[in-house]
Amino acid sequence: MIIVLKPRSTHDDLIRVEQMVKRRGLDTHIVEGSDMTIIGCIGDTTRIDSKLFEVDSAVEKVMHVQEPYKLVNRAFHPEDSIVNVSGVKVGGNSLAMIAGPCSVESFEQVLEIAESVKASGANMLRGGAFKPRTSPYSFQGLGLEGLDILCAVKKETGLPIVTELMSPDYLDVFNEKVDLIQIGARNMQNFDLLKQLGQLDRPILLKRGLNATYEEWVMSAEYIMASGNENVILCERGVRTFESYTRNTLDLQSIPVVRKLTHLPIIVDPSHAGGKWWLVESMAKASIAAGADGLMIEVHNNPECALCDGAQSLKPDKYGSMIQEITQIAKVIGKTL
Amino acid sequence: MIIVLKPRSTHDDLIRVEQMVKRRGLDTHIVEGSDMTIIGCIGDTTRIDSKLFEVDSAVEKVMHVQEPYKLVNRAFHPEDSIVNVSGVKVGGNSLAMIAGPCSVESFEQVLEIAESVKASGANMLRGGAFKPRTSPYSFQGLGLEGLDILCAVKKETGLPIVTELMSPDYLDVFNEKVDLIQIGARNMQNFDLLKQLGQLDRPILLKRGLNATYEEWVMSAEYIMASGNENVILCERGVRTFESYTRNTLDLQSIPVVRKLTHLPIIVDPSHAGGKWWLVESMAKASIAAGADGLMIEVHNNPECALCDGAQSLKPDKYGSMIQEITQIAKVIGKTL
Amino acid sequence: MIIVLKPRSTHDDLIRVEQMVKRRGLDTHIVEGSDMTIIGCIGDTTRIDSKLFEVDSAVEKVMHVQEPYKLVNRAFHPEDSIVNVSGVKVGGNSLAMIAGPCSVESFEQVLEIAESVKASGANMLRGGAFKPRTSPYSFQGLGLEGLDILCAVKKETGLPIVTELMSPDYLDVFNEKVDLIQIGARNMQNFDLLKQLGQLDRPILLKRGLNATYEEWVMSAEYIMASGNENVILCERGVRTFESYTRNTLDLQSIPVVRKLTHLPIIVDPSHAGGKWWLVESMAKASIAAGADGLMIEVHNNPECALCDGAQSLKPDKYGSMIQEITQIAKVIGKTL
Amino acid sequence: MIIVLKPRSTHDDLIRVEQMVKRRGLDTHIVEGSDMTIIGCIGDTTRIDSKLFEVDSAVEKVMHVQEPYKLVNRAFHPEDSIVNVSGVKVGGNSLAMIAGPCSVESFEQVLEIAESVKASGANMLRGGAFKPRTSPYSFQGLGLEGLDILCAVKKETGLPIVTELMSPDYLDVFNEKVDLIQIGARNMQNFDLLKQLGQLDRPILLKRGLNATYEEWVMSAEYIMASGNENVILCERGVRTFESYTRNTLDLQSIPVVRKLTHLPIIVDPSHAGGKWWLVESMAKASIAAGADGLMIEVHNNPECALCDGAQSLKPDKYGSMIQEITQIAKVIGKTL
Repeated sequence: MIIVLKPRSTHDDLIRVEQMVKRRGLDTHIVEGSDMTIIGCIGDTTRIDSKLFEVDSAVEKVMHVQEPYKLVNRAFHPEDSIVNVSGVKVGGNSLAMIAGPCSVESFEQVLEIAESVKASGANMLRGGAFKPRTSPYSFQGLGLEGLDILCAVKKETGLPIVTELMSPDYLDVFNEKVDLIQIGARNMQNFDLLKQLGQLDRPILLKRGLNATYEEWVMSAEYIMASGNENVILCERGVRTFESYTRNTLDLQSIPVVRKLTHLPIIVDPSHAGGKWWLVESMAKASIAAGADGLMIEVHNNPECALCDGAQSLKPDKYGSMIQEITQIAKVIGKTL
Repeated sequence: MIIVLKPRSTHDDLIRVEQMVKRRGLDTHIVEGSDMTIIGCIGDTTRIDSKLFEVDSAVEKVMHVQEPYKLVNRAFHPEDSIVNVSGVKVGGNSLAMIAGPCSVESFEQVLEIAESVKASGANMLRGGAFKPRTSPYSFQGLGLEGLDILCAVKKETGLPIVTELMSPDYLDVFNEKVDLIQIGARNMQNFDLLKQLGQLDRPILLKRGLNATYEEWVMSAEYIMASGNENVILCERGVRTFESYTRNTLDLQSIPVVRKLTHLPIIVDPSHAGGKWWLVESMAKASIAAGADGLMIEVHNNPECALCDGAQSLKPDKYGSMIQEITQIAKVIGKTL
Repeated sequence: MIIVLKPRSTHDDLIRVEQMVKRRGLDTHIVEGSDMTIIGCIGDTTRIDSKLFEVDSAVEKVMHVQEPYKLVNRAFHPEDSIVNVSGVKVGGNSLAMIAGPCSVESFEQVLEIAESVKASGANMLRGGAFKPRTSPYSFQGLGLEGLDILCAVKKETGLPIVTELMSPDYLDVFNEKVDLIQIGARNMQNFDLLKQLGQLDRPILLKRGLNATYEEWVMSAEYIMASGNENVILCERGVRTFESYTRNTLDLQSIPVVRKLTHLPIIVDPSHAGGKWWLVESMAKASIAAGADGLMIEVHNNPECALCDGAQSLKPDKYGSMIQEITQIAKVIGKTL
Repeated sequence: MIIVLKPRSTHDDLIRVEQMVKRRGLDTHIVEGSDMTIIGCIGDTTRIDSKLFEVDSAVEKVMHVQEPYKLVNRAFHPEDSIVNVSGVKVGGNSLAMIAGPCSVESFEQVLEIAESVKASGANMLRGGAFKPRTSPYSFQGLGLEGLDILCAVKKETGLPIVTELMSPDYLDVFNEKVDLIQIGARNMQNFDLLKQLGQLDRPILLKRGLNATYEEWVMSAEYIMASGNENVILCERGVRTFESYTRNTLDLQSIPVVRKLTHLPIIVDPSHAGGKWWLVESMAKASIAAGADGLMIEVHNNPECALCDGAQSLKPDKYGSMIQEITQIAKVIGKTL
């Protein structure tokens, strides 16, 4: 951490700020330039709130030089982490191909979609049982009944299931039944929930918040890991920008950035990012070409009648043809489906 | 709701889409232009997900003409709502002046600040007992002990207390002890929590999410009201933009917009918006001049030693002098402190 | 265009607004719903400013149903346009591979880079002679001398040259010497310049503004085309968002969107988007996988000593190995380098 | 400037980077911490591109501690600058009250509005002769004829005139006839134009770009000043965010920020920011309460028939009543109209 003093600071100012730093257990190193003085703070600054020092009237600004995260940090864990989701490996050279309907509507619906995407090459099944909806009047999902349907389809197809947890009330049942627990964009900074996820055995799929910086996203993963659960997969799903033609702006630069900052796997959800089915295929290919560890894609056998987000769902045959091209791109990149 | 068909749509397309609409219980009205055909949908469209129709290959786009909210809507409730917070009226011509430390640190600290801001004119006391922090390693607040301190200070000063609820685990204790329950920006779309707030008797202070549109914010208030609690106060606290010099960009246009869309009171938190104490005074004055129903401001007796967010806290004497100018501005606007 | 009247509008309101519409040469079609009345406006509304009608006190909102652009619109020109840049075709199945240094520094420098990227497969040479710089104190480019260097290198290598025009003062010399005239992000809405570009014979590479919506970007292309120059290539180069770790957020969804809205070719500049060389390769691959018609990439033989933007430049050998993987991805997508 | 080396950098890395710094004429000061090494660079770093150093493979990041601007910097010019616009002082305790129609339509129109706003208290007249329009098919302004109308009205009323310059072709005529030359948001980084403005005698009103950071905005003022014209007034007019209900988000925090960073006056344009007339009054009051040095407001005698932006124009009587309240707020703040 570096503290820059205001241009006309006095020696007394310097001494006072230096002592604030030392009280926090850090060493200091003073650099006096012609125009300004800076204080280098030496020691473990990851647990210190730099805002504290900005209060002093002689402080111009405080700059971090060390990342505030440790457990997710690639610097301390250089190899890629590979997360095992009930036998499916995510990370390294293996791709997670998660597909399924936005909402669970019925056993027949989910089974038909699951069999079809499995035949195309998917290795996990997604489906929303609890749905976060902007309006209290929109369909909120089938709840526990939806979860049971997913489990029944898992029994039939063998596909591990991925579904979103919205409330701490269901931590136990999710831990028991769900192979990969999804935390949605709106709960990425629900810190209480993150801490509780650290107690679970199941891997967590942590979606990026709509306005989360890379650092905040990675810090939310740090919350889960610091609470005891090391199996975290990150999921890019677009961020909110000024552009409203698409629902969100998919940020594929997040793939190389996350890979540099952390050792965790990262997958992409192109369906929610754009909100339009005709954007999905090109963004899915782009994600794999950019090095993503997998894709989460909405597939619906009858999008016209979907209870939720039909506009962004692919039909099963479209999904199948897309997977074939993706397999070839993956090969170029050195990955296998 | 208006559905625009694609330029070269056929009569069969029109019939098919029209029937999708009618199946949802709406009437239709067809407008055929030279280049395009539109379908006007007549009836209550607030509970219908317009995305449903975008799935049809003949549909170019779907546009809402009706707002999706009812209970908060000024169209159905033309007079301003006035929310009573344990005797302090918020809305109409009365201003809520909420002040206090970011975090509760000790009884002495909170009492000293509370007495000072009360003497300056504050009519409610804020203080964080549970703190949402980006890092798992930052100070997370005193928790229930902090809440007890607030209650003890309330006993001494008579000031109603405002504090943030982060977890459903504490719904009961907050309902019992807290006069105005704050929901922070990061929980604005924690829909499960919003539904549970609807069961409480206490008024709710709903902060705007960092990337929440006006409509989403107002829909979150609709969640609370639709679940049974009509006492909602909105709080503008800045939104996230490309500008990183300030923590967030305070959006004071939200005041006239919220007042037009809804009948709910709206207050402003200039401390968190900018994240710098020297921005607070001018933004506080601006908020009142723009017609806000109150202010929530961080005041600390010793910002240099604050455990959290000292950089954005005013000292008590600065708060006092600011309130005097604000009182005069309020008078110009027709409000009284 | 659809005009929605306010809920309690009278018949007189309706008549008055209807007449405003008719005075602009449009027909009207009235839809009276239970809660609201809408006026459908029939005729060519692309040249009408919808804001005009919002002034009327009875108007709730005005919504466009027709795109405001014609010449660039795929609806009126269904096949892909192919732009011929001095013999290099851009669009269709042919990829533009533009490479070169950020700034022209010397003949030797540019020649060395040009020969190397040509050997790797590049088919156009980029290099900045006039540089847009945020600071008046930064290196502003060699100007006309830089342009002459590019021409000399073109003579040696045969590569068409691409360089940025910043001022109308140089329209003639650029029209004479430059094969593809680049308009930078900051000039995307320099409308006077856009009109003048319409007078030229040379194709234009129009970069997306940092905060330009798809519609605004496409409207700027419409400006050029409406002024007489039909040879426009669009270039995605990232948009500004809240994320500041990368210089900008590369928006690859723009590729399928632009392809849907317009018939113009679109290429991607991953170097400027991220501002970091280690982001370039993955984003270049992603762009081609997403269907881009080409790439513009900064390559420098000695990035450590570059006068500008060395941090985002690839070294020639890195560029070479990247092109090989891109060639394979292009083949999967059905394109050839 | 501070250069942070990567965690596992060697002594050779340090030496190499240190020498890069020294070659640029700076001294260095090394701070070796337990985990990392930083190099403090001492000397005038405002003219050095920090990106240069990021190229080195041992460099983790480079951080500026000095602002890159000098002439506009309050640190080197502590008193407020007061800009004299043909006799009207802007800055200090004097407020610039600029009002008039969006577009100049006719002599009668402009004269009527000018007389009315002058009677209400306006001290400058605005009106667009050259209009920047997103669509090539929209009304582009009367051009030089519009400028002549403004001059004729100035003769009648004595009000100095403010109008936008879009093209270098008209530099001379604007310098001769226009009292305050406005540079619009879209040209804020038209660097060639900025340099040419430095040659003029007239004061410049520099609007903030839609996505310009404070630093970029202030750097554009530095361009003008570094080229020789010291009379620059800044104008906040809203920035582009994810919120699309309003045209832009007015950022009033810019007032205290600009005042801290620079010695230049700053005014606010609430008409363009929100794009809706009913937002103007509250934002105008807020701007003055926040300490702005003036307002630029659109007033039209017949907004329903305005050729441009009628939706954001106030009627003259509304403007008059607003000015009265603003006068009172200004008094509270210590300013006089």
